[in-house]
Amino acid sequence: MRLGGIEAGGSKFVCAIGSGPDDLAICEIPTTTPEATIQRVVTFFKAGGPVKAIGIGSFGPIDPNPKSPTFGYITSTPKLAWRNVDLAGAMRGALGVEVAFDTDVNAAALGEFRWGAAQGLEDFLYLTVGTGIGGGGMSNGELMHGRTHPEMGHIRIPHDLVRDPFAGCCPYHGDCLEGLASAPAIESRWGQAAGNLPAGHPAWDLEAHYLALGLCNWVFTLSPQRVILGGGVMRRRRGHAA
Amino acid sequence: MRLGGIEAGGSKFVCAIGSGPDDLAICEIPTTTPEATIQRVVTFFKAGGPVKAIGIGSFGPIDPNPKSPTFGYITSTPKLAWRNVDLAGAMRGALGVEVAFDTDVNAAALGEFRWGAAQGLEDFLYLTVGTGIGGGGMSNGELMHGRTHPEMGHIRIPHDLVRDPFAGCCPYHGDCLEGLASAPAIESRWGQAAGNLPAGHPAWDLEAHYLALGLCNWVFTLSPQRVILGGGVMRRRRGHAA
Repeated sequence: MRLGGIEAGGSKFVCAIGSGPDDLAICEIPTTTPEATIQRVVTFFKAGGPVKAIGIGSFGPIDPNPKSPTFGYITSTPKLAWRNVDLAGAMRGALGVEVAFDTDVNAAALGEFRWGAAQGLEDFLYLTVGTGIGGGGMSNGELMHGRTHPEMGHIRIPHDLVRDPFAGCCPYHGDCLEGLASAPAIESRWGQAAGNLPAGHPAWDLEAHYLALGLCNWVFTLSPQRVILGGGVMRRRRGHAA
Repeated sequence: MRLGGIEAGGSKFVCAIGSGPDDLAICEIPTTTPEATIQRVVTFFKAGGPVKAIGIGSFGPIDPNPKSPTFGYITSTPKLAWRNVDLAGAMRGALGVEVAFDTDVNAAALGEFRWGAAQGLEDFLYLTVGTGIGGGGMSNGELMHGRTHPEMGHIRIPHDLVRDPFAGCCPYHGDCLEGLASAPAIESRWGQAAGNLPAGHPAWDLEAHYLALGLCNWVFTLSPQRVILGGGVMRRRRGHAA
């Protein structure tokens, strides 16, 4: 069965047609205006032949509640051109197929559950550490949404201003976890991109410290069977620059 | 239908027979040794006449997983006499009825769902602030357990040592949320019990500050539709001592 998948990100849309991770035709489309981006995505899926349904994992905040009148919308995102854009509706309208719609991190969690590191688990957390920090996951075998969806990266953690005087870079909270430990936080604090910082650089001990504090809070709150770490910052190999 | 309920606490066991909150025969039994306490609980239920089943909400840590060989046990509790006590099995053996077993906070959450402030909700958090701080709740209409069960009170939050030099009283973490904002933390910091602190005392602004930080972290992590606050510290009325 051929299905479509879209990872809708703030800098690019990654689109794929296939039946699983080993059988994928992939196309990356830069995120510009909603009109231009969606048009190119639709063109990719029309050219690739019919798909039975499409799944979208999107940057947000979004409305992932199928019972809501704004289901499928990107809602209060700081990317102003994308506010209140009916992404799922646009795809359903253009391609005439059912569309599933969730956060990028819940889609990643579902992928880990179906094909990856969370197979056989019912309670786990998927965390991404990159341009932002976000978490998704399952409780009792179902993806967690709640009232809207979690925004896990914005938890507050202890911040020792003597050890780390950096004020944090979250536009909403300053020194929440994302403001202290995302890739832009690392770059702002040290004056160079995370990928250029060598293995012995003090950035990494501090990064591990903050991520450990965040992980403790999620472990105490969710009691996951496993935590899966993804995202650009986590791609750095032990003893090597990213 | 007559059912039995037990709130197994560190200082007392509250036992009840009935069919709902308006139809309860209640008995409080002090928590002493497991043998003596369980014997008195069994006596209460035998004297009260047959019940169809018993539900237990227990202090912990516990094993609430029905598939586990130690289901129904109190496990690694700091109350040493109660370690590895098969509380559910003792009740089932003595009374010959099915026993449901969960954390005290999950049992409270289930009560709020069935009869209280969480009716009609599928994603909510119940929090108790008293001798300890603990949380339970539902995701997608099911109580959350995970690998064992949450220990939400032990999350780490920002602690401004200039504003509040108190080191925290958690024996495991010092200044985790429970170590800063539980009733024993209030009493240790200010030298008198929370119930004796007057309305204008700075203890309350600080308490609200810490609870707000905790609530932010749980809201970001769980996205609950509602948060229900219970426990001794929350019984204090606005403008009055507790």
